Amino acid sequence: MKAIKKLEEFGAQIVKQIEEGEPPEFETVLRTRSNIYFDETFKCLRTGDKREKRKYLSVSQARKFMQTLAIAAQIKKNLEQRKHTALRGLFYQLKRTLGEDLEEDLFSEQSESNPLIEDLEAALQLKREDFHINADRKGFVAGPMKIIDRDGGEENIIDLTKMGRSGWSIPSDVDNDIEISDVKADYVLVVEKDAIWQRLNEDRYWRRENCLLLTPKGQSTRGTRRLLRKLADLGLPIYCFMDCDAWGWYIYWTIKTGSMNLAYLGKDFAVPEAKFIGVTMSDIEEFSFLKQLTIKAKEVDLKRAEEMLSYPWIAKSEDWVRELKLVLKTKKKLEQDALQGESLTFVGEYVKHKIEEKKWLKD
Amino acid sequence: MKAIKKLEEFGAQIVKQIEEGEPPEFETVLRTRSNIYFDETFKCLRTGDKREKRKYLSVSQARKFMQTLAIAAQIKKNLEQRKHTALRGLFYQLKRTLGEDLEEDLFSEQSESNPLIEDLEAALQLKREDFHINADRKGFVAGPMKIIDRDGGEENIIDLTKMGRSGWSIPSDVDNDIEISDVKADYVLVVEKDAIWQRLNEDRYWRRENCLLLTPKGQSTRGTRRLLRKLADLGLPIYCFMDCDAWGWYIYWTIKTGSMNLAYLGKDFAVPEAKFIGVTMSDIEEFSFLKQLTIKAKEVDLKRAEEMLSYPWIAKSEDWVRELKLVLKTKKKLEQDALQGESLTFVGEYVKHKIEEKKWLKD
Repeated sequence: MKAIKKLEEFGAQIVKQIEEGEPPEFETVLRTRSNIYFDETFKCLRTGDKREKRKYLSVSQARKFMQTLAIAAQIKKNLEQRKHTALRGLFYQLKRTLGEDLEEDLFSEQSESNPLIEDLEAALQLKREDFHINADRKGFVAGPMKIIDRDGGEENIIDLTKMGRSGWSIPSDVDNDIEISDVKADYVLVVEKDAIWQRLNEDRYWRRENCLLLTPKGQSTRGTRRLLRKLADLGLPIYCFMDCDAWGWYIYWTIKTGSMNLAYLGKDFAVPEAKFIGVTMSDIEEFSFLKQLTIKAKEVDLKRAEEMLSYPWIAKSEDWVRELKLVLKTKKKLEQDALQGESLTFVGEYVKHKIEEKKWLKD
Repeated sequence: MKAIKKLEEFGAQIVKQIEEGEPPEFETVLRTRSNIYFDETFKCLRTGDKREKRKYLSVSQARKFMQTLAIAAQIKKNLEQRKHTALRGLFYQLKRTLGEDLEEDLFSEQSESNPLIEDLEAALQLKREDFHINADRKGFVAGPMKIIDRDGGEENIIDLTKMGRSGWSIPSDVDNDIEISDVKADYVLVVEKDAIWQRLNEDRYWRRENCLLLTPKGQSTRGTRRLLRKLADLGLPIYCFMDCDAWGWYIYWTIKTGSMNLAYLGKDFAVPEAKFIGVTMSDIEEFSFLKQLTIKAKEVDLKRAEEMLSYPWIAKSEDWVRELKLVLKTKKKLEQDALQGESLTFVGEYVKHKIEEKKWLKD
């Protein structure tokens, strides 16, 4: 396995330093704001060239350095056993005293281990998933696609047209021992809220329109972002259908450009191809019943709109600027749930219309 | 459909009152604390005999009365169309002005509609699910059982032994147009955290031990509680495996006795058969490696332990009293994740041991 090999090399390098009488150290990517930029070529947030050293012979870093090596060793053991755990599980694997005579624990809080795992991801150019560390999972898909899941050493082929009301739950890891297959869809529809996903799934929108119907159920997990990246790599257009408010925009832009937090993972977690089809405040002009279904924008929505207007990659889009200014002017917002106001099936008609007429906000 | 019939009778009764010159009114169950009690026969929280009237000719109630009728009418329409929506969708279906000349909206906040839906549930002895109102869904199952899901007018048979790493997502409604079938399991294991569910699922614990492996993913949704009720009705023992802390205990007792909030739905949402197999502070005596994996109990854990000791149905259980007092004395708590401390596969051995040796806390 690639990860085991990289961890071995990492360990060997430290041993070599010690044997040669050098102070043990390794390099990782600087993950602070000063090293995060918007990559104009890939259209996503990435970390730059700045790197920083982790040194053993440093009063402030010695403990962390030792902890990082302990994490790397434990991850290697877990990988060799072909077993997964979560961040919390890994913390407990490492929570122990340093020896009978020592008062000091190797780890006393999970908040100590989390950033060191990121250090290792960045230093070794691997993802947490490759370390067999499960992240929180969330989100569902239905539609013409199959998943070949080789979890636990057995093969299961899951047909996402046969999952009834539930859909297929997007796992934490869509990269290892798992395959996407038989993708027959024309596009992916990403729906912010599970409630709206359920509405569209009940109407079998994905069958009628031959698409994949996906909900991140709010903010996207790592698994959902990786899945969307893979589907975009297959050439499927990615249409995003969100609330018109701070949270909806944030969810969309995280899918599209990635997030500051995961900028060190760069383009593997970004889908610059994603398009925002709605809802928008301008929808009211076309669908007048929506007018009385707008609600008062909150302070956070207005603040976020201001903030977004200051991002160069948003400010240069006429459509986004018009939309955000409309929110700021009217101090109103619109939720995707509101589309059910006149008829429960209208949500599907709306989405279809937006896609057919190419009515997305042009970036 | 039963719900449509009941809603029609409800409407007919109001019309009759008006035609006979009576002031329109209806009766519902009082849902405040004063009418909630622990039912010694069914061992669950229920509402008592106290009922209250909702009257149209009352300054404080007129608006709510009118709103309730509007909700009932809208639900009937949705049922006739055989379509589902969520609470938020229903709110938008009802959010409209009362007429061109009136400043007043029928509904202006969702917080107005939610309690009135409960009023209708309690008055008509129906569940929100019967009204086709989706609640939030959460939780997963894997193991020897099939689901026949007739959602959206098509039949899908889902085999819960073939769901790979994902499992089957427990839907909001497990009562309507859905069937549990081919249950071959010997018992149900309920695991508080999804991370631990994933650990056990990767080891195919459910296959080795021939059980259903279920996680509510924290507090149980309505759907999860209904599913557990149905599985208990099939005669399956329900073993619960939670954290030893305020939240873990609360999740367990909500499954077992139901909650104050849903007491009006009574025994349909309670599983008094449920047994608590761990983790417990007493586990440390048997598994000494756990000693250094305990963590400091929070104020909320200690407060909750005190509170629980004051409930008569807990105070009479020697096991629970000993356990809670141990937490209060040591001011420590233990998470289920800690069982991975020595080896990732120990979680399964622990659960198996607890069940085989009947080591649950006796109520």
